[in-house]
Amino acid sequence: MENSNTIEKRTTVFTSEELLAHWQGHRALTRRTIEAFPEKEFFTHSIGGMRTFAELTMELLGIAAPGMKEIVVGNTEKLKEHFDHGNKKEYLLALWDKDTEAINTYWEQLKDEDFSKNIKLFGEYEGTVISSILYFIDNEIHHRGQAYVYLRSLGIEPPFFWER
Amino acid sequence: MENSNTIEKRTTVFTSEELLAHWQGHRALTRRTIEAFPEKEFFTHSIGGMRTFAELTMELLGIAAPGMKEIVVGNTEKLKEHFDHGNKKEYLLALWDKDTEAINTYWEQLKDEDFSKNIKLFGEYEGTVISSILYFIDNEIHHRGQAYVYLRSLGIEPPFFWER
Repeated sequence: MENSNTIEKRTTVFTSEELLAHWQGHRALTRRTIEAFPEKEFFTHSIGGMRTFAELTMELLGIAAPGMKEIVVGNTEKLKEHFDHGNKKEYLLALWDKDTEAINTYWEQLKDEDFSKNIKLFGEYEGTVISSILYFIDNEIHHRGQAYVYLRSLGIEPPFFWER
Repeated sequence: MENSNTIEKRTTVFTSEELLAHWQGHRALTRRTIEAFPEKEFFTHSIGGMRTFAELTMELLGIAAPGMKEIVVGNTEKLKEHFDHGNKKEYLLALWDKDTEAINTYWEQLKDEDFSKNIKLFGEYEGTVISSILYFIDNEIHHRGQAYVYLRSLGIEPPFFWER
């Protein structure tokens, strides 16, 4: 009984459902950040030789749903960071929404014991499933923070960071 | 037995120790980002009317260890976002290191069942302990991402994001 009690205590830190909700909350904020950009500047504006937010968004699109697919389905594909967009935010936003649903669907297939498994994502990045998913989230926050500077430098107020 | 099995599965998502290591890994990267700034620009450089990275660093210093202290000890203090620094990075880095130790010490007093408790941090911000700690980490990643743009705009290469 003591062991079972110890185990139960550890569960209060974070559940799989809470982690998904946390991530999707961040993804909703990133979507609003994309929306805040004027169409032209989304594809052209950059500071200090960095990538545009369109390019960073495509990196995020290449990682999130394809990463979850690989974690759950197991087949390794090369990281894809370019998507056809015809310089329309609308197209990348549609991919974003499709991937929101895809992530939810893959997540349902993720078993809790999978989180500690070792994987080599996109044939390149070694780690556990949980460390990979946290990397997806952290990387998204990191690049979205950069997009906030782009927006401010354009005189545009970014969405509230604490609203998810 | 089935219930106990379910509980055990949930524990693999994330443990308290892993969360602390994750946070301290991020804090080490933020420290290297502070170090990467030239002394003068750390206190003066900004884009689009945003705060300097010195000011953002002081926000992070005001949140992390004081937040953990409030979570563990329980006494509410007002959020402090200004520290004497005399325009020396060295002084804020010393505070950073002191707080790294303080966070570890407070963390030892954090019980796993505390993560789901409700708190009103700094007398203002309501949430659970886990949502508050995740906010500390996310907010740090967000502002550090902005510091990467500041560094790039100064022609300085930031530390590798994936190195913790």
